[in-house]
Amino acid sequence: MPAPIDFYFELSSPYSYLAARKIGDVAKLYDRAVHWWPIMLGVIFQTTQNRPLMEQPLKADYTDRDVRRVARDMGLPFAPPVAGFPFASHVGARAIYWAADQEEGADARLAVALFQAVFERGQSITDAAAVGRVGDAVGLDGAALIDAVGMPAVKDRLRAANDRALAAGVCGAPFFIVDEEPFWGCDRLDHVERWLATGGW
Amino acid sequence: MPAPIDFYFELSSPYSYLAARKIGDVAKLYDRAVHWWPIMLGVIFQTTQNRPLMEQPLKADYTDRDVRRVARDMGLPFAPPVAGFPFASHVGARAIYWAADQEEGADARLAVALFQAVFERGQSITDAAAVGRVGDAVGLDGAALIDAVGMPAVKDRLRAANDRALAAGVCGAPFFIVDEEPFWGCDRLDHVERWLATGGW
Repeated sequence: MPAPIDFYFELSSPYSYLAARKIGDVAKLYDRAVHWWPIMLGVIFQTTQNRPLMEQPLKADYTDRDVRRVARDMGLPFAPPVAGFPFASHVGARAIYWAADQEEGADARLAVALFQAVFERGQSITDAAAVGRVGDAVGLDGAALIDAVGMPAVKDRLRAANDRALAAGVCGAPFFIVDEEPFWGCDRLDHVERWLATGGW
Repeated sequence: MPAPIDFYFELSSPYSYLAARKIGDVAKLYDRAVHWWPIMLGVIFQTTQNRPLMEQPLKADYTDRDVRRVARDMGLPFAPPVAGFPFASHVGARAIYWAADQEEGADARLAVALFQAVFERGQSITDAAAVGRVGDAVGLDGAALIDAVGMPAVKDRLRAANDRALAAGVCGAPFFIVDEEPFWGCDRLDHVERWLATGGW
């Protein structure tokens, strides 16, 4: 079996949401697994010396329009929180690492459900209780999840993932690595797919 | 005849080069003219508070790899100057506005030729003599061009274009506006084309 696709994402990033709704299908077409790596884009930005799109004049307006247009193009719903994004996503990210240890595929299931809560139903997932409810809804133990996200070992998983991302050259989110080839952005999903199909160009 | 496509670009941007090599063909398919607007990305960045990709840690390495991959994917040569990019492109930009007044289509011809000099043959186009030689090669009067790029009226054209871009919400380059719909990035050319074909979604 070829190596899994490393999928780095930030729960508060709308383009990460769009990518998360598709990457599983793309991978399956080419018999690949996906390794789900939630990261903190704020940590990446400390290195790239960048800021969230929604805090940049002109880019904020453009991004709001573009992300809705891309969602329509992809046939995906988009109804983000009125309070906007980015938001603090570390609790949800930690929960995804915890879920990975509960059963195979639980991390992907929880990640997609968290993205759908935020970007399809406009819910907040900043606190543990909200993340726990999403966990319950996808068949995980929400109470155990709420305990876990405060544990040092789980927090360390997220810190290690951020370090791993920086070492791998992840400069934004979503970010994909296919057989050591890096792809940044939801708009590189077509390249990811063709790379999987052809082995590169 | 429907409105022309506004095409904003920066001569020192490799993604602008790639877009410039394609936008004419795309427009022609849908009976559209292209209005060529060279701008100073540095001026845009003063508003977006951003910096060139090649000056951002991690993003520089990624961009170098991505732009070559996109060029191969588009079937276009890519051999940029060893000294890299961005570089001071105001002389070339002014020359393009001057060319627009010489004969119809001369601005597009000069813009593409300048992009090819830089990104296909690795030449420098920072000084007037170099830009004049490219002008000569595409049938313009290089000596007149060299005189023109120092004239206040020509400098004002570029300044006005930067102002126009900011007022239109241009947050980066390349940037396209099709019937008031904005598209940012070489990787939105497919959306531009589908927007022209369908009138939007």
